[in-house]
Amino acid sequence: MAGTVVALGGNALQRAGGEGTWAEACAQMRRAARTLAEVARAPGVLVVTHGNGPQVGVLLRQNELGAGEVPSRPLDVLGAETQGQIGYLVQSELTAALRRAGVARSVLTVISRTEVRGDDPAFRTPTKPVGRFYTESEARLLRKGRGWTLVNDPARGGWRRLVPSPRPVRWIEGHAVRELLGSKLGSRWIPVVAGGGGVPVVRRAPGVYEGVEAVIDKDLASSLVARELRTETLAIVTDVPGAAVRFGRSGERWLGEVDRAELARWSRDGEFAAGSMGPKVEAGLEFLRRGGRRFVITDIPSLPRALRGEAGTRVR
Amino acid sequence: MAGTVVALGGNALQRAGGEGTWAEACAQMRRAARTLAEVARAPGVLVVTHGNGPQVGVLLRQNELGAGEVPSRPLDVLGAETQGQIGYLVQSELTAALRRAGVARSVLTVISRTEVRGDDPAFRTPTKPVGRFYTESEARLLRKGRGWTLVNDPARGGWRRLVPSPRPVRWIEGHAVRELLGSKLGSRWIPVVAGGGGVPVVRRAPGVYEGVEAVIDKDLASSLVARELRTETLAIVTDVPGAAVRFGRSGERWLGEVDRAELARWSRDGEFAAGSMGPKVEAGLEFLRRGGRRFVITDIPSLPRALRGEAGTRVR
Repeated sequence: MAGTVVALGGNALQRAGGEGTWAEACAQMRRAARTLAEVARAPGVLVVTHGNGPQVGVLLRQNELGAGEVPSRPLDVLGAETQGQIGYLVQSELTAALRRAGVARSVLTVISRTEVRGDDPAFRTPTKPVGRFYTESEARLLRKGRGWTLVNDPARGGWRRLVPSPRPVRWIEGHAVRELLGSKLGSRWIPVVAGGGGVPVVRRAPGVYEGVEAVIDKDLASSLVARELRTETLAIVTDVPGAAVRFGRSGERWLGEVDRAELARWSRDGEFAAGSMGPKVEAGLEFLRRGGRRFVITDIPSLPRALRGEAGTRVR
Repeated sequence: MAGTVVALGGNALQRAGGEGTWAEACAQMRRAARTLAEVARAPGVLVVTHGNGPQVGVLLRQNELGAGEVPSRPLDVLGAETQGQIGYLVQSELTAALRRAGVARSVLTVISRTEVRGDDPAFRTPTKPVGRFYTESEARLLRKGRGWTLVNDPARGGWRRLVPSPRPVRWIEGHAVRELLGSKLGSRWIPVVAGGGGVPVVRRAPGVYEGVEAVIDKDLASSLVARELRTETLAIVTDVPGAAVRFGRSGERWLGEVDRAELARWSRDGEFAAGSMGPKVEAGLEFLRRGGRRFVITDIPSLPRALRGEAGTRVR
């Protein structure tokens, strides 16, 4: 389908250095929504995905603090809750911005599950720190009692739980969203999907999926969404206007129009930081390798110009 | 459209007297899902709505307990989170049950906002207790500082916040769900919508809605969903097999096939308890008054037979 999957991260949802209040989140999303409404003027499908790192962190913390009084919920359930929370935010602010801009489209949040493989090597080597810091003796108890993997980060405050980050292989609700977008008035809707990378589930039998305590990289999940909807473009929106080589060092160079093979080479050479620009570039390269036409990395203010080929990092 | 809106409450989602763990919720929903999968064999639209009382209570409590460390979120946002949480539960268990039953349908959760009027008299007279109990001096501070209405319930533990319960007037995402259900493969999807009555929002300008701290009766919201989708049937699933007159007194009589005028008369005479069977009957009568064809009240085990006219309370 002609159209774009826009993956929102970082600044679009939460102000860096803010207090993390809901009013702040609304104000931040309101700004992003003005830009997205401009993007929504273009014909073709528009789909929004988003991260959930800070939001799921708050829910985890509240679960821990309330554990003496009310039962805690597993990580996959908290992920589904952040999809409701952030989806509501995006759909409220974006629908309003669309109306103000005179764009006759509406926003719809679909709770999304993402299948991962039970034999993904990530399950043997958890790598993503989540939740609070523990003392050494607490860490020992949690390792024994709950089978957690924990890592010591003394500079930041002690031991922390690590969860696996398996690769997304299928977006379970994708067929329904594809059907909606392909319907008579389909282009009228802007779905918000695969929030936080989607709720990670493992297939136990045909149609039977079980949630797992893991996190899915939201950029890889967004690449999967773009492939399953067969959109031309995947746009990853982050805090910087594009990708750079020699980032933060002498000879730093911001990338504009880039060749796919060139980007892949830089990526192999370690030009893009792990946990930051690295997975975004990897997600984009995967999208292009598997049938995608265009991959864009930029920030919210530059997004409309980036999609017109005038800003950001663009790869074909 | 031919078809049914099934409103799930009480036992379908949480075991009475249980500990409120996620494992319990899954087991409970798994049982309900087996019955719903049977219902889903019938042709025609099937839409699921649900309550969120206990679940939003847990989130409120966790927000209160964590307030010293992480910012709290308003009630409307917590409502959206429970839609994600419960929607994920319903769609996981029901999709699995459908597969096991050989029914080729899938479940899709859509985050739903419900418009209420800013001038609804409920805003002047909050009636629904939410959250924890406070001491008299805390209550005084909250009344002054945050403008809350609080009520004293000494037998249960002190003062409690009251929030308004305005009438639902529009289901904002209804047009998208109607379009999906009317599409080529529309009958393939079972949408889960208007969880907890939908997130209550007030219209500030065309297309611009603002969340409000209120709760919406899930049965009235389900009646609205059924009317907006123009389904023939509204089925309210509760903990008892049907409605009764002289409930719990001598001469108690369970109602089977009932005339609408007769039900309305009993309702006016106060036969159905406020906060329990009363609002369900009211929701059903409103559905029938405004174009609905059939209204059913029953419990999960009796639902398939009730829909065949062999059990439960049925009103035309």
